Amino acid sequence: MKKERTAVSDPLWKRYMDLVKKEMIPYQWAVLNDDIDIFIEKERDDDFIPNEKSHAMENLRIAAGLSKGEHYGWVFQDSDVYKWLEAAAYSLEYEPDEDLKTIADGVVDLISKAQQPDGYINTYFTIKAPERKYDDLVESHELYCAGHLLEALIAFNRATGSEKAMQIALKLADNIDANFGPEEGKIHAADGHEEVEIGLMKLYHVTGEEKYLKLADYFLTIRDSSPEVYKKQCEPDNGKGFIFNSSCEPQKYNQTHLPVREQETAEGHAVRLVYMCTAMADVAAETGDEQLAAACRKIWKNITEKRMYITGGIGQTVSGEAFTLDYDLPNDTMYCETCASIGLVFFAKRMLRLERKAEYADVMERVLYNTVLSGMALDGKHFFYVNPLEVDPKKGKKDPTKSHVKSVRPQWLGCACCPPNLARLIASIGDHVFTVFDDNTVLVDLFIRSELKFETDSGEVTVKLESDYPKSGRVVLEVRNNSDEPVNLGIRIPSWSEKNRGYVDGAETETETKDGYWYVRILSGTHTAELDICIEPKRWYANTAVSEDIHKVALARGPQVYCVEETDNGKDLHCLSLKESGKLECEWREDLLNGVFVIEAEGVRYSQNPDGNGLYLTEKRQEKTPETIRFVPYHTWGNRGENEMHIWLHETE
Amino acid sequence: MKKERTAVSDPLWKRYMDLVKKEMIPYQWAVLNDDIDIFIEKERDDDFIPNEKSHAMENLRIAAGLSKGEHYGWVFQDSDVYKWLEAAAYSLEYEPDEDLKTIADGVVDLISKAQQPDGYINTYFTIKAPERKYDDLVESHELYCAGHLLEALIAFNRATGSEKAMQIALKLADNIDANFGPEEGKIHAADGHEEVEIGLMKLYHVTGEEKYLKLADYFLTIRDSSPEVYKKQCEPDNGKGFIFNSSCEPQKYNQTHLPVREQETAEGHAVRLVYMCTAMADVAAETGDEQLAAACRKIWKNITEKRMYITGGIGQTVSGEAFTLDYDLPNDTMYCETCASIGLVFFAKRMLRLERKAEYADVMERVLYNTVLSGMALDGKHFFYVNPLEVDPKKGKKDPTKSHVKSVRPQWLGCACCPPNLARLIASIGDHVFTVFDDNTVLVDLFIRSELKFETDSGEVTVKLESDYPKSGRVVLEVRNNSDEPVNLGIRIPSWSEKNRGYVDGAETETETKDGYWYVRILSGTHTAELDICIEPKRWYANTAVSEDIHKVALARGPQVYCVEETDNGKDLHCLSLKESGKLECEWREDLLNGVFVIEAEGVRYSQNPDGNGLYLTEKRQEKTPETIRFVPYHTWGNRGENEMHIWLHETE
Repeated sequence: MKKERTAVSDPLWKRYMDLVKKEMIPYQWAVLNDDIDIFIEKERDDDFIPNEKSHAMENLRIAAGLSKGEHYGWVFQDSDVYKWLEAAAYSLEYEPDEDLKTIADGVVDLISKAQQPDGYINTYFTIKAPERKYDDLVESHELYCAGHLLEALIAFNRATGSEKAMQIALKLADNIDANFGPEEGKIHAADGHEEVEIGLMKLYHVTGEEKYLKLADYFLTIRDSSPEVYKKQCEPDNGKGFIFNSSCEPQKYNQTHLPVREQETAEGHAVRLVYMCTAMADVAAETGDEQLAAACRKIWKNITEKRMYITGGIGQTVSGEAFTLDYDLPNDTMYCETCASIGLVFFAKRMLRLERKAEYADVMERVLYNTVLSGMALDGKHFFYVNPLEVDPKKGKKDPTKSHVKSVRPQWLGCACCPPNLARLIASIGDHVFTVFDDNTVLVDLFIRSELKFETDSGEVTVKLESDYPKSGRVVLEVRNNSDEPVNLGIRIPSWSEKNRGYVDGAETETETKDGYWYVRILSGTHTAELDICIEPKRWYANTAVSEDIHKVALARGPQVYCVEETDNGKDLHCLSLKESGKLECEWREDLLNGVFVIEAEGVRYSQNPDGNGLYLTEKRQEKTPETIRFVPYHTWGNRGENEMHIWLHETE
Repeated sequence: MKKERTAVSDPLWKRYMDLVKKEMIPYQWAVLNDDIDIFIEKERDDDFIPNEKSHAMENLRIAAGLSKGEHYGWVFQDSDVYKWLEAAAYSLEYEPDEDLKTIADGVVDLISKAQQPDGYINTYFTIKAPERKYDDLVESHELYCAGHLLEALIAFNRATGSEKAMQIALKLADNIDANFGPEEGKIHAADGHEEVEIGLMKLYHVTGEEKYLKLADYFLTIRDSSPEVYKKQCEPDNGKGFIFNSSCEPQKYNQTHLPVREQETAEGHAVRLVYMCTAMADVAAETGDEQLAAACRKIWKNITEKRMYITGGIGQTVSGEAFTLDYDLPNDTMYCETCASIGLVFFAKRMLRLERKAEYADVMERVLYNTVLSGMALDGKHFFYVNPLEVDPKKGKKDPTKSHVKSVRPQWLGCACCPPNLARLIASIGDHVFTVFDDNTVLVDLFIRSELKFETDSGEVTVKLESDYPKSGRVVLEVRNNSDEPVNLGIRIPSWSEKNRGYVDGAETETETKDGYWYVRILSGTHTAELDICIEPKRWYANTAVSEDIHKVALARGPQVYCVEETDNGKDLHCLSLKESGKLECEWREDLLNGVFVIEAEGVRYSQNPDGNGLYLTEKRQEKTPETIRFVPYHTWGNRGENEMHIWLHETE
């Protein structure tokens, strides 16, 4: 993989990166240290969700011998700190900050103290069950946490050059390598929650050490036979995991139902699935394993063509936070966990490295501008775990089967995986703008104002992306090619766009595409390529196979899916209907929701005729009154108090 | 209350009564004795549902000291036997049967042996926890079972004159009276599941003993203060019930959140709520307690005007098998337990005794012809616990949150409350046809071919109802009034009907109504009143406040709600749309589903255009093809194999 650096200066994303730096990182630091008085909400009604405090930093201090006490929180509580550290690292890379660096150095120091002499680290097991290390893999999350720690340490090393961070990472990875692998005497099982594979691949990418690639591949390959080990490990515990009483049987929930190379559909826990696929695509790109690549393509296709919401949300049911079946996309009971969408971004990015197809970037963009950003409030201090497409706050309160569907973002969550995951993704958004290949092909995947630098064999190349997309669709790429080799610039043409215009060095050109990219060959010197994407509000329709969306329409403007909120449209949003060929007017509102285009659309409101007060009537006692319906970008919903929200609206002629 | 007897000879209901006698009672007897090889399904995915066997009769034998072993099944497993006995009693009353009587006598005998010397009876506690008798009331179901036993014994006594049955009943009721009541030293709490109040009221009606009325009233009155006792009882068990770890706090789930007289909405577990209301209305009718009656009216109104499905189903969520909130009526995740609808029939019947309003009978009819009958297969040997309005079998299998929504009736259920409840209601359907008052008013509530006999102070009155309703709408009532007093015949005019015609002694008459009844005064001698109800297929619409049904239509013919099934209409029923003013044609099909009218309606099928294969598209790539849509009565659905089913269909112009 090419060494590349992208500096972001985008109006929208820089605001979010500043928010991460100024608000999220300090806020989350306070939460992880239990230094702030907040209400931690359970992500759904469940007795076993720990929500008294975070205790994540204290767990590390106890494990390091610097403090006394019991472990508190989930078995994977450590990962909150690791994701925070990773976010802090990206943030430091984006903008130096001595205070933050001091704190982060302290965290690395603490981690090194909590790490056992053999390289093992996990506060739950160190404090609570040292004799069961790597001995309840179906649910222990030890390798899951290790994967997050590897990612964090590698990011911190990249940002600060910290040798200590790299030493911890190597020691940890070597501990894993010593304990897991095909050799006799090692454990022949993968973690119940994929993630370590991603961390190991990152370590492979930065060190070039084959053993980490091999170990990542091994963990994927033994996935379906891991339950044999799970069962043996759980024998003393009546055949079930000793922490949560989890089943040790092969199951879709943790993708152990089939060899990964034979999996064709997205099954089970959505975050697990996309983390697994991320690693699969990464390994396949390195090893050229065609079976692995084919499985990635099939699962990708299954997700994006049959099991993904228009917002890029995935996970159709709260039960197991999981996928269900093709075209089953309920709007008000779904899960659409923020972390699952984040994982889908990672998966898309790895697919882009595997093959140069814009469909991966199209989905990545859809996910980023909708479900990822909706995962947090505009203040950076409130977070959604679940991102619904339709909410009636009354129902979430009165029907326990909808307890996971919240209409206001909580300050923190019993399972706090999403908030720091958001922070690390946003802080590293620059890594997702371009994909650079060894043959000097540069794919422009996202239209985020930024500057990319990389080296060819003969000199430096700078690609400057100028745009305020998606406010406007004008994207200017200035390439300074100070090398002797031509650069092949592939500019993504969004699949939803039409009537775009392209210019090379000022002259209008055809914008023919290959797999969704418009390729411009840039020879030495400075050249520009410009793409004018026609961004106007569009109606979107779901395939009729989606029973929940039939006879309904959604609006989007560019990559941003829109929604209606009660605040703008009154109660009973289900009574609104959008006119099929009515006008859609856009207005920029600088004052609203940090600056958004509002779409006003012609519609009608259905209501019960005052003389038709019964619940069921043999006559249709309904009135239809014209109404202007007001849409705002989906990712901004829920920032103006508790209220109803809908993405899909009924369509009328 | 008037002593009355109604003999049923109705074509539809006699078939069901025969089914109860010939199939259900023997089948259920075999199940209760574990004498038949069947698969007992869990009513939903839940680890703690016992589904290995029934063991209900064996529990009684163990408690009676006639067998050795452990108790198996729910804490309320006894009630399955009691409801079976009640059904057997009504069946014997309907048609004598020496073999069945011998078996039933044996059951009564066994019950008398299982009854403790002090009158107490409950196999769970006798076998498993004799020291905790009446000591875990929040979840023990002891009084719930006692209520069912009282109902069974009273029915058996009515059918056979069994003195033994009455003695067991009195001894049991007196045990309850000795243990519960306002007096010091007695327990000041009601059972967590209402039912005993209904049994006590029946005992009061047959014995005239005031103490049973007072005790029933007491149990209602102390309902909201019962949690104080629950909490004390559960102190040794960490403050939660010792069987299921139930909360002892006042809660809507078991209607302890407010004094019953202050409850205005239907809250909590649906069966509990309607059983409570049944007793409330019964007590109010006897005591003239206006507060109690007012609460009944308010809750009735809340259920039937805001929280009831068009099928008469109640209970909107699987979580707690409970009500949720007004107008929240999802069609594919609801609960609509068969027992809840049965309880709603009981509540309606008690309201009819409280006040002469046809709306109670209208709802009773809706419930009986739809959700009650849909609770069982046409073979009498398969049963639904949950009665959905929309099913896609794939979804129930792949989404655990829909595990309760089955598309084929199981042979038996882990919690088997519904099958014998159906048997006892159907076997006693005659009790619901008429409501006879002391002033010789006879309300004709259901149009079921039958003969009613009752005595006035001066002689016998016979009311013969001749009809094959709802096949046709012609109802002829022949009244032989052999007394000196006039009989006031109130014939219900269904609220959905119009253009009806009435005849008295052959002469056409106005059919003016008072509270939904057309009153005809019958002097001595034999007279006829005839009502020709215009029965034709009708379109029904839900109030626009019901988000799930907006833009949708349902069909009904008379009291029978109709549905579409995949067998008749192919897959993807959500793609069908009914033409707003298309023709609805009815055809009698003697060969189909035991004889039904099939409705054929003009409609269209939406489908994705073959070139529109994406999941989300910016163009509506849909095709509309005309299609004749075929409807069958809802209660017959699911009798032709696993398939999709919908009641509500999209409506198009």
